[in-house]
Amino acid sequence: MAGPENEFCFRVRYSDTDQMGTFSSDRALDWFEHGRTELLRQVGLPYAEVEKRGVFLPVAEAHVKYLGRARYDDLLEVTTTAAMVGKARLRCEVRIVHAEGRTPVAEGWTIHAFVDSAGRPIRPPDWFVQTLERHSE
Amino acid sequence: MAGPENEFCFRVRYSDTDQMGTFSSDRALDWFEHGRTELLRQVGLPYAEVEKRGVFLPVAEAHVKYLGRARYDDLLEVTTTAAMVGKARLRCEVRIVHAEGRTPVAEGWTIHAFVDSAGRPIRPPDWFVQTLERHSE
Amino acid sequence: MAGPENEFCFRVRYSDTDQMGTFSSDRALDWFEHGRTELLRQVGLPYAEVEKRGVFLPVAEAHVKYLGRARYDDLLEVTTTAAMVGKARLRCEVRIVHAEGRTPVAEGWTIHAFVDSAGRPIRPPDWFVQTLERHSE
Amino acid sequence: MAGPENEFCFRVRYSDTDQMGTFSSDRALDWFEHGRTELLRQVGLPYAEVEKRGVFLPVAEAHVKYLGRARYDDLLEVTTTAAMVGKARLRCEVRIVHAEGRTPVAEGWTIHAFVDSAGRPIRPPDWFVQTLERHSE
Repeated sequence: MAGPENEFCFRVRYSDTDQMGTFSSDRALDWFEHGRTELLRQVGLPYAEVEKRGVFLPVAEAHVKYLGRARYDDLLEVTTTAAMVGKARLRCEVRIVHAEGRTPVAEGWTIHAFVDSAGRPIRPPDWFVQTLERHSE
Repeated sequence: MAGPENEFCFRVRYSDTDQMGTFSSDRALDWFEHGRTELLRQVGLPYAEVEKRGVFLPVAEAHVKYLGRARYDDLLEVTTTAAMVGKARLRCEVRIVHAEGRTPVAEGWTIHAFVDSAGRPIRPPDWFVQTLERHSE
Repeated sequence: MAGPENEFCFRVRYSDTDQMGTFSSDRALDWFEHGRTELLRQVGLPYAEVEKRGVFLPVAEAHVKYLGRARYDDLLEVTTTAAMVGKARLRCEVRIVHAEGRTPVAEGWTIHAFVDSAGRPIRPPDWFVQTLERHSE
Repeated sequence: MAGPENEFCFRVRYSDTDQMGTFSSDRALDWFEHGRTELLRQVGLPYAEVEKRGVFLPVAEAHVKYLGRARYDDLLEVTTTAAMVGKARLRCEVRIVHAEGRTPVAEGWTIHAFVDSAGRPIRPPDWFVQTLERHSE
């Protein structure tokens, strides 16, 4: 069963670049976050509201493969999918390509814990898990 | 009456650079923040503890003049002074130079409001103002 | 004579926030840069192409007034105008408000030098100045 | 054979935090970079000079496990080791703990390609590999 999928485009900002002329490696994790934000909004679980309900999804693990350069102002397309792994964790897969030509830029994944506002592990709430499932095939 | 002064050195990180080969302009404000942190620690008012006492110092206004390039791994020296302006605001002056040769990199200032954890303006606490005065000449 | 004006909207990213719950002060300069990028594209002078022609516009001076909070995922609107000041400098004015309700977030300006790829001052090229003028009223 | 090892300490900056009150997940990759910089300087291969010799070490792959919170101004200790993997890649292992108490914050690794200034793969230069070996046990 595949989880919901979101696609969105953005442009590389000047501050994303470094002196090697491509994007700074840490930016990939920022772009992955942007992808999660758009995916959760799409399925009706805007993350700002998830936090308002007292549920936080800190990154527990992240993996990035850098596949190609991206320059300032390049238009990139981010494809994000999300699914529960086991009973207590969310996994997001992300792939970033150039919008034009679709040459790859980066791909990877993040795994997220479910915690309360004090950082204590909690059981993923039913409303979260069921909404995610409803948008899966 | 001049306020307390702090000097510290740091190295430009790779992610501070951009494709122009110097530091990204937004980094200057991050370095100014670093300067304030070190100055407040020096006078016995570590900002982490200031916040624990319920006092927050958000930036209300900032000004930067960019005076020269700084490359990856360059050793920079930051000089920061702080003083109250009027009854309700803190002003920090910052100057950044190359540690070697002292060629200028950037200078500027920030003005800070005093607010509580909800963001409401508060009167600067006596313990803050008096400590700052004790370290002034 | 007012210069060309650009408006665009974007959402505050999670990494733009800090523990005060609003955006990190250095982010404002990044958003100003984003505004310039969109304005220059709109008038037919995409900055990536300006650099390809050997013309660089480093920030020489920047000023920011912080006028209100902005939280993660808030939709903000950036309005940017640009005009030459004197014969050798570009000035951009920026205003950022909440897209909904239009409460102010930040405003300010940046002044830019014209330099070549080695960082040496150059005369602003005619094709740049004239294009800017054509889009002014 | 273990590669050279570097330890250094730094403090979490305000802009490293996000509204969850801990550090933004992308910051870990910036800190890993900082660790590599210090390790390469220690063995006599300052990365700024490596680039001056025409050798670039872009990140090809990165992995991070987030093990604990770190707050603004917390003093963190970064331990970095580096070794060649196969004939063409450098691997850095990083571990970040609180300097006081040594509770873990993050750990992970990065793998680096060797490329020239145009981004083309090159054979790792002997002077690089041999220096690294001389500092290994």
